[in-house]
Amino acid sequence: MARPMGPVRLKKTNPLTLLIGAALCIFILYFLLGSSAPDFSAARKATAASHPLSPPTSPFRQSSSGGKLKPPPVTRYNLNNVTITNTPIENRENVLVLTPMARFYQGYWDNLLQLTYPHELITLGFILPKNKEGNAAYAELDKQITKTQKYGPEKDRFKSIIILRQDFDPPLVSQDEAERHKMQNQKPRRAAMAKARNSLLFTTLGPDTSWVLWLDADVIETPPSLIQDLAFHNKPLIAPNCFQKFYNSEKKKMDERPYDFNNWQDSPTALKLGESLGPDDILLEGYHDMPTYRTLMAYMAEDGGDVHYEIPLDGVGGTALLVKADVHRDGAMFPPFSFYHLIETEGFAKMARRLGWQATGLPNYKVFHYNE
Amino acid sequence: MARPMGPVRLKKTNPLTLLIGAALCIFILYFLLGSSAPDFSAARKATAASHPLSPPTSPFRQSSSGGKLKPPPVTRYNLNNVTITNTPIENRENVLVLTPMARFYQGYWDNLLQLTYPHELITLGFILPKNKEGNAAYAELDKQITKTQKYGPEKDRFKSIIILRQDFDPPLVSQDEAERHKMQNQKPRRAAMAKARNSLLFTTLGPDTSWVLWLDADVIETPPSLIQDLAFHNKPLIAPNCFQKFYNSEKKKMDERPYDFNNWQDSPTALKLGESLGPDDILLEGYHDMPTYRTLMAYMAEDGGDVHYEIPLDGVGGTALLVKADVHRDGAMFPPFSFYHLIETEGFAKMARRLGWQATGLPNYKVFHYNE
Repeated sequence: MARPMGPVRLKKTNPLTLLIGAALCIFILYFLLGSSAPDFSAARKATAASHPLSPPTSPFRQSSSGGKLKPPPVTRYNLNNVTITNTPIENRENVLVLTPMARFYQGYWDNLLQLTYPHELITLGFILPKNKEGNAAYAELDKQITKTQKYGPEKDRFKSIIILRQDFDPPLVSQDEAERHKMQNQKPRRAAMAKARNSLLFTTLGPDTSWVLWLDADVIETPPSLIQDLAFHNKPLIAPNCFQKFYNSEKKKMDERPYDFNNWQDSPTALKLGESLGPDDILLEGYHDMPTYRTLMAYMAEDGGDVHYEIPLDGVGGTALLVKADVHRDGAMFPPFSFYHLIETEGFAKMARRLGWQATGLPNYKVFHYNE
Repeated sequence: MARPMGPVRLKKTNPLTLLIGAALCIFILYFLLGSSAPDFSAARKATAASHPLSPPTSPFRQSSSGGKLKPPPVTRYNLNNVTITNTPIENRENVLVLTPMARFYQGYWDNLLQLTYPHELITLGFILPKNKEGNAAYAELDKQITKTQKYGPEKDRFKSIIILRQDFDPPLVSQDEAERHKMQNQKPRRAAMAKARNSLLFTTLGPDTSWVLWLDADVIETPPSLIQDLAFHNKPLIAPNCFQKFYNSEKKKMDERPYDFNNWQDSPTALKLGESLGPDDILLEGYHDMPTYRTLMAYMAEDGGDVHYEIPLDGVGGTALLVKADVHRDGAMFPPFSFYHLIETEGFAKMARRLGWQATGLPNYKVFHYNE
């Protein structure tokens, strides 16, 4: 029952391949949202107390005078109101959108802009590789950020934006696409991706973040109410179904096909296969050589099916995934090593499970991946 | 070869017992360091670019006028200079000192103040339980912080301070000390402690943090050059040897005894014991019922021995531990579940190892624990 999904995976993994390395070199872009139109004054007041990621930094600004100042005042912030609920807008819950980015897609940014969750509650975090492709993506991202944060309408502007640059070289010598997607190359690639996600997560998650939305840089179309819709289910981890639009030359019209195969329910075969592996070996989904017979959410979408239909998941992908911040704060991260023979996002689902949190999937709630 | 260390552990674990729960309720105390005496102007300039934990938050301050402002400027920070070296002061490296605190000890605070690492490079992070004892500790901590940050000499003031309050109840009903230290109660206790450490770590680590010093709230005496001394070894994880001073009634004078038994080198017996355990079971150090025959750093100190003498460690304790921030950013956290039959700080050492980082111990470099 091996599935012919090689080519699909080939396209999927391509833009992420360059995200690698452990140590960080860091650029922080920060865009001021200082205006205070009456419509937004309440929001500004709410966020005035603290940054979503930290206490305020104003004390570190250089004094305009060179002289000794009087003892500074003590400022206290009581943030004892961090809720994580299925009505996040009403409760003014902060959302952190995290995106590892090897390539910039205009569709990704345009889709972000059309999200109807209040942008003044959204912090964006990016991590880009420190190489030629990463520099190109950075330049394009930078341009769009400036356009939105500086010149865009107030409602479009996000609360804050953080960009991390990695400084490690890619672990693979060959950049040949077929070579990179060979099964034996998947483990270092996924491990590097896991480290990139961890670096981004550990340095941007704040004490008053309620939700973390993992959104891959090549996801270019989601419902505008994505965040509210997913949060409405009030689940610790919840994944929509990631599809891809393409021109079906047989049907002579646009069509859709499943894309993210890392959202799955476990199978006895996969578990047994895991037992037969060495402690450092990992199970991979979507390879002919390793049929797992897992139940893939990608194939569970039904035409006209209820978008609220929920299924439990044992493995999750990273294309789009809403996580309660408490799950991460408890310690759930993306294992860059074999964890129950799983790695990266799939290992994350298992780690969350070990912490008592169950992943959920929405087979009929679709988001769409770029078609290269 | 079971060791009679029951009473010692009893004393050690006591002040940490109340640190529990997963979700956070959060207080952030933030103390302004706005003055700019000439001596510190360079430091202020260096830190003006960004908070150790995040981009600056000034944009979120309420505008003094209610009117619409002109489009805000775009501000960029290039922080591509985060080094982690054995000369951290020369390289102006930021240190994050993290302390889970169930009780406040004046000795802890006084010891912090006497650290000679430049305080303007040190951020303090605390997590306290949200119960009566935590409230008492919070009040005392608050008082000392105000004294130091507001009225203290400029050189004493820390870069910033973050305090998190947990809102979960203790997992154990009985607060009887003997009951709490029964072996079967250790796993939930250590798991709760691990979650507290993770919450603190995930929400305070920043992109420009170079080092994380884990320092328990009951460590009341260290060499003033602790941070520099440990960083000098340039190791990913490095632990000094935690002792306790006490009055030796036999010798009729003050004496020292080993205290932290979680710094150890593995033994074939312990590894074999691990294999015999169920997947969720953990190995514990220091219990008669479970002799591990591990080599404990606690017993390796030599009178007049070289303080720079290094040994490799397989398990580490949390009383005092300096970690390169990259280790955490790669994803190393404190497993609140059985990880290779290890949990919390001991599991952290194993997880770091899985990420390629080896722990080191300094048997002759001592720090001292409070004696209740």
